[in-house]
Amino acid sequence: MKVTAAQLALLLDGSLEGDPNAIVSRPARIEEAVDGDFAFLDNIRYEPYAYSTKASILLVHRSFQPTQPLKPTLIRVDDVRSSLALLLQKFDEANQANGTDVPEASFVHKSAVIGVGTRIGVYAVIEEGAVIGNNCTIYPQVFIGRNVRIGNNCRIYPGVRIHFDCVIGDNCTLHANAVIGADGFGFAPQGDKTWVKVPQVGNVVIENDVEVGACTCIDRAAIGSTLIRQGAKLDNLIHIAHNAEVGNNTALAAQVGVAGSTRIGDNCQIGGQVGFAGHLTIANGTRIQAQSGLGSSVEKPNTALFGSPAIGYKDFIRSHVVFKQLPDLQKKVLELEKKLKELSERSVKNEQKG
Amino acid sequence: MKVTAAQLALLLDGSLEGDPNAIVSRPARIEEAVDGDFAFLDNIRYEPYAYSTKASILLVHRSFQPTQPLKPTLIRVDDVRSSLALLLQKFDEANQANGTDVPEASFVHKSAVIGVGTRIGVYAVIEEGAVIGNNCTIYPQVFIGRNVRIGNNCRIYPGVRIHFDCVIGDNCTLHANAVIGADGFGFAPQGDKTWVKVPQVGNVVIENDVEVGACTCIDRAAIGSTLIRQGAKLDNLIHIAHNAEVGNNTALAAQVGVAGSTRIGDNCQIGGQVGFAGHLTIANGTRIQAQSGLGSSVEKPNTALFGSPAIGYKDFIRSHVVFKQLPDLQKKVLELEKKLKELSERSVKNEQKG
Amino acid sequence: MKVTAAQLALLLDGSLEGDPNAIVSRPARIEEAVDGDFAFLDNIRYEPYAYSTKASILLVHRSFQPTQPLKPTLIRVDDVRSSLALLLQKFDEANQANGTDVPEASFVHKSAVIGVGTRIGVYAVIEEGAVIGNNCTIYPQVFIGRNVRIGNNCRIYPGVRIHFDCVIGDNCTLHANAVIGADGFGFAPQGDKTWVKVPQVGNVVIENDVEVGACTCIDRAAIGSTLIRQGAKLDNLIHIAHNAEVGNNTALAAQVGVAGSTRIGDNCQIGGQVGFAGHLTIANGTRIQAQSGLGSSVEKPNTALFGSPAIGYKDFIRSHVVFKQLPDLQKKVLELEKKLKELSERSVKNEQKG
Repeated sequence: MKVTAAQLALLLDGSLEGDPNAIVSRPARIEEAVDGDFAFLDNIRYEPYAYSTKASILLVHRSFQPTQPLKPTLIRVDDVRSSLALLLQKFDEANQANGTDVPEASFVHKSAVIGVGTRIGVYAVIEEGAVIGNNCTIYPQVFIGRNVRIGNNCRIYPGVRIHFDCVIGDNCTLHANAVIGADGFGFAPQGDKTWVKVPQVGNVVIENDVEVGACTCIDRAAIGSTLIRQGAKLDNLIHIAHNAEVGNNTALAAQVGVAGSTRIGDNCQIGGQVGFAGHLTIANGTRIQAQSGLGSSVEKPNTALFGSPAIGYKDFIRSHVVFKQLPDLQKKVLELEKKLKELSERSVKNEQKG
Repeated sequence: MKVTAAQLALLLDGSLEGDPNAIVSRPARIEEAVDGDFAFLDNIRYEPYAYSTKASILLVHRSFQPTQPLKPTLIRVDDVRSSLALLLQKFDEANQANGTDVPEASFVHKSAVIGVGTRIGVYAVIEEGAVIGNNCTIYPQVFIGRNVRIGNNCRIYPGVRIHFDCVIGDNCTLHANAVIGADGFGFAPQGDKTWVKVPQVGNVVIENDVEVGACTCIDRAAIGSTLIRQGAKLDNLIHIAHNAEVGNNTALAAQVGVAGSTRIGDNCQIGGQVGFAGHLTIANGTRIQAQSGLGSSVEKPNTALFGSPAIGYKDFIRSHVVFKQLPDLQKKVLELEKKLKELSERSVKNEQKG
Repeated sequence: MKVTAAQLALLLDGSLEGDPNAIVSRPARIEEAVDGDFAFLDNIRYEPYAYSTKASILLVHRSFQPTQPLKPTLIRVDDVRSSLALLLQKFDEANQANGTDVPEASFVHKSAVIGVGTRIGVYAVIEEGAVIGNNCTIYPQVFIGRNVRIGNNCRIYPGVRIHFDCVIGDNCTLHANAVIGADGFGFAPQGDKTWVKVPQVGNVVIENDVEVGACTCIDRAAIGSTLIRQGAKLDNLIHIAHNAEVGNNTALAAQVGVAGSTRIGDNCQIGGQVGFAGHLTIANGTRIQAQSGLGSSVEKPNTALFGSPAIGYKDFIRSHVVFKQLPDLQKKVLELEKKLKELSERSVKNEQKG
């Protein structure tokens, strides 16, 4: 997307100082911007950069009083941060609007239903009985299995695989190479130590407003559904096992692992690389520090946890402080032991003397 | 797959009570089932649900005596669990049997050999010299490189990449977006701190009856083979480095990482997010708790381990109990130190008095 | 690639002993080689294998004096290791040279620019405005988004996704199913505990000579660039968050996670499954043991770290030694407490007596 300073001023209801024909094509930080970028000055700490920036256009507050000459065309607005948010939104939409529209080079089963305004990328595969809502973007090379249902306004990025019978709500974003509905890891041990596969015939249900990161894998339930509730946000490379559940608005950072049948409550914040054992229940509002390991359920809402196995956040910090001093502590105990022995012996001697 | 109660009764050698024309299309838990589902009552704890379930068909024991009226058509069988397993198997087979069969929209090199009953999905690529056995399902968008050999009865899900010269046995399942045979991570450090790539010219050999999870990556050997032995089960997002080996029937939970040349024995059970350093040997039957880190070999078979770095399972539990009490322990030591000092001073004073 | 012993001797400037027409098609370890392999004897420890190996050709030092008869044709060279490296390089090139060249079955936007000698695999997608340099191999099923720029001599393996506006330098290798430039994980918390997505309108810049492992995900910056500097090597299943930076020649082992805006310096060596919190600065030459967790910046170059949260490597080792003895230490403290109490009581008694 390329826009002129005049267009930006109009869009933002701002006043323009400088060249109305200055053209910009992308946002940049004020300290990194080059010709053709637009930048912004919100925090006065960054004012020195206003005089050195190479940006073509600079968003500033209406009240901004430059103390030196500056290169960029200025657009003065009431609220720099809101104006910036609006602009980023516009650029993001423009990025998405540019699609590759070659329906003849995708495979859409004749029984599949594709909504109005939904675009299907090249080499995408949409199997029998799948139903996709309106205004979705199915990027190239996506796989959508039999009887999958997808709501409205979803973005399914290249290489995403959604297996048969899974359900995706409205306004969901699934990033590249995510896998929804692969078999859960279910095997029954046999007497001879081999494993027999337990058929995984459930599905995955993802509710509205969910974001799923790149290469994140959400396995289908053995029976029933693996469930990602409304507004949950999952980062990259996460593993969600069969029959697990992630609550409303819960955010999981990258590389988290959730074992089978574990239910994470609403509004939880889970740090990167955290692991959950199976069959746990994690209360609403739980906050877990990165790399922690949950081996048991959390019953009290809004608990903060840390460590592997996890304990209370503050308890962990206090124990870890001592952990770092353990060699000293051990030395001290040995010295105490020695001193006590000496004192004890002297005491015995004194008693004998006495 | 849709079946009637009469068909189910016949298949399971069960006796039917209710509507023989009741139709079901999927299994469900008794407490979650809706119209069109079949459910089962195996554990008597769940009996109350039998009277409220919305399932159309319910599998019960021959001896089941309802104490209230119930909605579903009943099918009485000798062994509910076995009947259920059989039914799930049938549904699973039906799920797989529905394929997208469009050979003209895949790329199969003219020198590739494709077995009898093997189906190739849309936009799959099968390169020169590849040999695929009988009754395999190669899903859409799979990549099979030059001279790859795949046995009989394999399922290769969408987006799996198998690089040149790799070998897959019979009855293997590779889940979506798994990568077999990417280059091992081999670089020789140079004097100027840059790295020179060490060519990775070996392959990956996966024996029979192996399952590989979604987005799991098994790197090719530098020279020789990275080896996954018969019956091993690998969950999602696992990393197996070059020249590593996973033993017969060994199960690795999700997000495990195995560094180069490490050999894990037979019948091991490895928890999620466990990491192995390189060049280790792990004895048969080793069990490792989730998130543990193995920095040295395990020589004694059937050992249970925990912690990072891992120690004996029980030892870890005992040490972790004290870890949680470390602030108290430290306080106690400081108090002891103080008391001992006081006692010692008093003792000196007494001696002087004496 | 198949070569005769005579060809190998010529290539390596070696002298030949045995059958000049012996044919080999792959390298193998001396102890594992079979007919048709070539092996090498560099370390004298392996000499016994020279007499039992089934290799067709064996590379040995010019000075090697066999003490028993041997089967393989010998090629005597000045430096076995260098000769082997050269041979592996030749085999690697031959592996790469075999490509699938079917331009008509890929999608290349008419505005995209493809360099001389660059091959595009089947079902690859190259969108509007993308520019790819010379002598690249774009494997099948790759996705290259709008305005992506790729340098010369790159290998982009099957299923890699490179999103719009990202930049890849010369001589880069991106392994299968890696994802470059998916949205960063940016959400603004709202009063009602829902999240609003922060548009991610920056990009990813990968400099020259970088290798990116299979299923590794490098997210695009919110604004500006996520940056992988020259010569960095990233293993499989790594997560690099938005606006993070990886320094020159820094090597990250598999499953490392780097949170947003963290800058890792040059020449660092990071073990597998290590996690970094956001907004850290890690000094040049830092070495971090596998599974460690970095919660704070590292200011001193060439520091070695271990633990989660990480502390000095040697400090961790010392503390962990005591951790393993914690139950004994606790027992000792309780005993000391008891003894001290006894002594103290006795002392009081003695004073009273006195």
